[in-house]
Amino acid sequence: MNVAAEAKEKDTRQRIVETAERLFRQLGFQKTTVADIARELGMSSANVYRFFGAKSEINEAVAQHLMGEVEQAAAGIAAEKKSASDRLRKLVHTIHKMNGERYIDNRKLHEIVAVALSDNWPIIVAHIGRMGAIFGKIIAEGVAKGEFQPCDVESAAKLVQTATIRYCHPRLMVECEDVPSPSLDEMVGFCLKALTK
Amino acid sequence: MNVAAEAKEKDTRQRIVETAERLFRQLGFQKTTVADIARELGMSSANVYRFFGAKSEINEAVAQHLMGEVEQAAAGIAAEKKSASDRLRKLVHTIHKMNGERYIDNRKLHEIVAVALSDNWPIIVAHIGRMGAIFGKIIAEGVAKGEFQPCDVESAAKLVQTATIRYCHPRLMVECEDVPSPSLDEMVGFCLKALTK
Repeated sequence: MNVAAEAKEKDTRQRIVETAERLFRQLGFQKTTVADIARELGMSSANVYRFFGAKSEINEAVAQHLMGEVEQAAAGIAAEKKSASDRLRKLVHTIHKMNGERYIDNRKLHEIVAVALSDNWPIIVAHIGRMGAIFGKIIAEGVAKGEFQPCDVESAAKLVQTATIRYCHPRLMVECEDVPSPSLDEMVGFCLKALTK
Repeated sequence: MNVAAEAKEKDTRQRIVETAERLFRQLGFQKTTVADIARELGMSSANVYRFFGAKSEINEAVAQHLMGEVEQAAAGIAAEKKSASDRLRKLVHTIHKMNGERYIDNRKLHEIVAVALSDNWPIIVAHIGRMGAIFGKIIAEGVAKGEFQPCDVESAAKLVQTATIRYCHPRLMVECEDVPSPSLDEMVGFCLKALTK
């Protein structure tokens, strides 16, 4: 395949994912069929299947794209010139906000999260791992600058990630709406205390 | 109603709940009907309905009983003559273990949790509140003895409860099975650091 053909293939693939995401937001992902996606793009279902072997692969590509955007924002925050504490706080706020916009404000899109979680999609575990690495990067820099106490950085990253799960996990965010909880800032402050001790 | 009749009523009510719980464990709570429960007890469905207006009331009574056992164990731990740190650690371990036995080892019983969470049963929020009060009791005593730093006890209780949710929330326990996480002891240790700082 020449370069132009490859670029076109990549472009088509991307357009399928974008269209699928839009339909998932409008109709919900269970109701959206490959035929719906193909129709929106003015192509045949057979052509969509040239790019994705099954609907489940499109679902995963959409989920991957949604999570990728959060990872990108997170990496941007980790690279900012701020104290590690401020970056950790901003990181948790950003995940909370982005997941809220994606999966809470749009309950249709929440469907994909519910199924991904129930069916244990491996891409979720991979996403949590990549996010953990970003938490770890910030914590390692905080330790290096004496802002945090020396610690096992990878373990500390998982601790902060796990302690703040109520504010980042889309389903918990919905479930806990009626449960009196500490504010996100209080929870990050609590974690920072443990890290600075 | 005289005392004996009242005692008998209470006893029948309790037997209905116990039988329902046993059937929920065997068949799952969605498949268990009021007729099944009545049959097991050798009574008519009409008689069951004298005690519970609807199946949903039986469901709630079973959930209440299951959660009540955890609350009782938790209160027992809070009353032990141990350091506040040791009691907090034991408390989280006990919730983890009891919920694990109830809802993870027995996936049929997990059904009731899934529905209670999705449908936002108010008794769950009340249970979380009572458990929070027990966390608070231990923390208050730790502060009084100088083991923990002075703090807003109610808020600290919610922080520890929320930070350890991954180890206590039945659905999260299932979901996170494949997610590399800190151990429960690491997480409690992290919380204790924040409390002692």
